Amino acid sequence: MGRVVADISTSLDGYVAGPDPSLDDPLGRGGEQLHEWVFGLRAWREPHGRSGGETGAANDLVEEHVRATGATIMGRRMYSGGQGPWEDDPRADGWWGDDPPFGHPVFVLTHHAREPLAKQGGTSFTFVTDGVDSALEQARDAAGDKDVAIGGGAEAIQQFLEAGLVDELHIHLVPVVLGGGARLLDRVGPDDVELETTRVIESAGVAHLRYQVGATGR
Amino acid sequence: MGRVVADISTSLDGYVAGPDPSLDDPLGRGGEQLHEWVFGLRAWREPHGRSGGETGAANDLVEEHVRATGATIMGRRMYSGGQGPWEDDPRADGWWGDDPPFGHPVFVLTHHAREPLAKQGGTSFTFVTDGVDSALEQARDAAGDKDVAIGGGAEAIQQFLEAGLVDELHIHLVPVVLGGGARLLDRVGPDDVELETTRVIESAGVAHLRYQVGATGR
Repeated sequence: MGRVVADISTSLDGYVAGPDPSLDDPLGRGGEQLHEWVFGLRAWREPHGRSGGETGAANDLVEEHVRATGATIMGRRMYSGGQGPWEDDPRADGWWGDDPPFGHPVFVLTHHAREPLAKQGGTSFTFVTDGVDSALEQARDAAGDKDVAIGGGAEAIQQFLEAGLVDELHIHLVPVVLGGGARLLDRVGPDDVELETTRVIESAGVAHLRYQVGATGR
Repeated sequence: MGRVVADISTSLDGYVAGPDPSLDDPLGRGGEQLHEWVFGLRAWREPHGRSGGETGAANDLVEEHVRATGATIMGRRMYSGGQGPWEDDPRADGWWGDDPPFGHPVFVLTHHAREPLAKQGGTSFTFVTDGVDSALEQARDAAGDKDVAIGGGAEAIQQFLEAGLVDELHIHLVPVVLGGGARLLDRVGPDDVELETTRVIESAGVAHLRYQVGATGR
């Protein structure tokens, strides 16, 4: 059975998205800076249908994560491009396009039942209304021996951490201060997780931090 | 002229102290975990009058910081051992003992004028009531060509960051979650600082992050 890996970029002040997200600006003010490090990488360009791109340490770890992942779980805001009245609107289906970059089944945590969507390139979206345990069970089935990635946003990762379901936490710490927005570790307390640092790599200014997450035995 | 360096340990969720600090527990619940990495190091044991201790990457960077620093600025809570009614009480003078580990002049930000205190081993405490600019001017005079360290707590570092007076930010990121307390980067926003990663080192699970802090030109 694969691991459950939460992998996300944060600002130095701990935010995964900036303040005031909207459909035009789903990552909030300044939030796009958290992801700039990945756009030039070969590992990002290839599944987005573009040639070329940087190789090196950052590319290696993204490729490693992509290769290891057999299914992804995400929150409805990440699915629909931010927080707002469109969250559960079928128009949000357009957000990831016809050929999303996952290439594997994606499970979306939501309160609104929806029919699954099949996309190109092996990506499908399945909407899960009965909680994190059910989403994980379905994602594990889909992933086989591969890992299940918790892709975000902050709230989805918090739910999995609080439920003790995360094996590894990968934080890509970007040297910007956002000053507001959605904090990765809000609601998470010392009774929820025990962390062990397993790897620290720096590449082009981003600190790639990897933690083993253990149960606290509470 | 030396640099102005803010150097502090934080939890993965960004706290420099845990919740509910008291005179018995000045670092708040769980806060002492942030400093455990340093207690075994030769660089910590020697100025505390103890022999032996670990050498290696973490020790090297603490020794480097100690050697480079000619004066320290701290907030009154760090001086008096936490937040509470004793903060401006002369009894708080006992907190650092007769032979504090600094070995150089220390400037304490406070609202209460006090006579300076001379301690053993080259440490003195001077109480500054007229703000961060004045504290920095006095600390620079005392430090000569060496660096001025902003030792903490969070509020003191925030004041210096907001005033654009910090040249380097050193964060020792410890793999614990405190879930509450004093956050290092509260109040600091994207208009206050521009960061450039200059070094990332891992040692015994702690990620030692070093940033150059630039003016944002606001």
